[in-house]
Amino acid sequence: MSSSFDVLGYMEKWNELVNEQLRILFTNEQSEPFELYKVMSYSLLNGGKRIRPILCIAGCESVKGDPNDVLIPACAIECIHSYSLIHDDLPAMDDDDLRRGKPTSHKAFGEASAILSGDGLLTKAFELISSNTMKKKFGSDKLIDSISLLSSAAGPSGMVGGQYLDIKADSIEVDSKYLEQIHLLKTSEMIRVSVCIGGILGGANEEEQNALSNFGRYIGLAFQIVDDILDFEGDENLLGKPVGSDLASGKITYLSMYGIEKSKEIANSTLEKSLGFLKVFGKDAETLEALAKFIVFRSL
Amino acid sequence: MSSSFDVLGYMEKWNELVNEQLRILFTNEQSEPFELYKVMSYSLLNGGKRIRPILCIAGCESVKGDPNDVLIPACAIECIHSYSLIHDDLPAMDDDDLRRGKPTSHKAFGEASAILSGDGLLTKAFELISSNTMKKKFGSDKLIDSISLLSSAAGPSGMVGGQYLDIKADSIEVDSKYLEQIHLLKTSEMIRVSVCIGGILGGANEEEQNALSNFGRYIGLAFQIVDDILDFEGDENLLGKPVGSDLASGKITYLSMYGIEKSKEIANSTLEKSLGFLKVFGKDAETLEALAKFIVFRSL
Repeated sequence: MSSSFDVLGYMEKWNELVNEQLRILFTNEQSEPFELYKVMSYSLLNGGKRIRPILCIAGCESVKGDPNDVLIPACAIECIHSYSLIHDDLPAMDDDDLRRGKPTSHKAFGEASAILSGDGLLTKAFELISSNTMKKKFGSDKLIDSISLLSSAAGPSGMVGGQYLDIKADSIEVDSKYLEQIHLLKTSEMIRVSVCIGGILGGANEEEQNALSNFGRYIGLAFQIVDDILDFEGDENLLGKPVGSDLASGKITYLSMYGIEKSKEIANSTLEKSLGFLKVFGKDAETLEALAKFIVFRSL
Repeated sequence: MSSSFDVLGYMEKWNELVNEQLRILFTNEQSEPFELYKVMSYSLLNGGKRIRPILCIAGCESVKGDPNDVLIPACAIECIHSYSLIHDDLPAMDDDDLRRGKPTSHKAFGEASAILSGDGLLTKAFELISSNTMKKKFGSDKLIDSISLLSSAAGPSGMVGGQYLDIKADSIEVDSKYLEQIHLLKTSEMIRVSVCIGGILGGANEEEQNALSNFGRYIGLAFQIVDDILDFEGDENLLGKPVGSDLASGKITYLSMYGIEKSKEIANSTLEKSLGFLKVFGKDAETLEALAKFIVFRSL
């Protein structure tokens, strides 16, 4: 990582721009039913790190695209992430009362509203990315490719499938392959396509798209391993949920599978693998490289 | 209605083709996690009338498109309908145990699986419609326009918003405007865009798209009014849920608002309004006209 690159400054800047854009999209009093938009924005504007949209923006920059162009698609990706948290927190799923120190959506608004706000955010993501404005900016081909990636990554053979395997993991013997499968589907796929969509909309050619896809896959996996590590020894602020909650709930994680030292080793080697795919971009991937290192080193 | 047109035969034929296509898409043993696909297909292959996909197919025919071309987009629309039923049936929503005489998804598989199968079906709809095969068949422009319509109609300012207003209606004084708003958002919007998407993908020009949109809006509203009437005096087989269940639950419907005779009058005049918009298509709208009459006369 170039020591001169201010990754925290970059993240702070884009975090604010993403938040501002999300506020514009979800707190407009003209939006009806406004009460439902309030339930959605309660979760959406809850102070996340915006890792996925920022990776989308950095993916766009890696192919010399204008990062401002992909702000709305980046927000669409965050909508999908936010929906997944709302539904994961439901009593029937992980049954969590708190998210980032605030009552979870179903605690604040009741289960029906929480389910619908998740449904609304998921659907709104596709509405945002298929608007006329987006069509004029990017042309339909790039948008269709982005929607195809996004829906596969979020859907039954992606994130939803990963969450399904995760809830089923409580009742079966989980081996390391099954655990990696959960992580790949539940976390890595959405991170992978966040980078890819930034690249596609920024004008990536096929070779660049493949490189971004491989980078995204491994950094997505590393992200989840690090999340497991933070659950064990981390800072509640970094993690967004109480430290030790996975361990306490008997959830199978990299930690319970490999122990702390081996998990850190795997995180490190997965980071190295991911960085290898950035070589084709030379200096243009400086931001992606810095973000990847931030994702892993926040824990080590 | 041309007396020579066999609307029941048409519906039966396309119902079978839609079911066959859905089976191909959702019961492929290669699909992973296969258990989740089983939960999704349990609800999806539950013997519905497939009104929305069939309206999509007939919309395509009204502009001289090849109806076989839109089979997969029509299935995508049915996925969204099916997801909405799964989530509406959840204990936190309408808390229904039976759907078409079979245990609802959460009764059969548990709440977590039911929520995820709904999420999966919703997301899969966008995956189906943005695939490479679709891109080659229709070109990206028409697909983006279809996705834009579908996501708006299904999302927070469409079906999800309507369901939100519906669950909130239990605790407020509902007037006729609010009731119409619920129905427009919850039911009519998805029916409207089903017809429109068929038209767009079949090659409708702007005038034709507007006509189909207006037709769809009114026939969608009529559909819901008729559903309310069937709840009161209908046949459980036609309705797909126990007769009188809305009334028993104290739900506000056209029936409780207007009584049976006035509701039938409104259904009839709404049908007439919808048919007026089909004139521009001449004989090509024969199928849409017959379907519209079927939708309304199944109850009267």
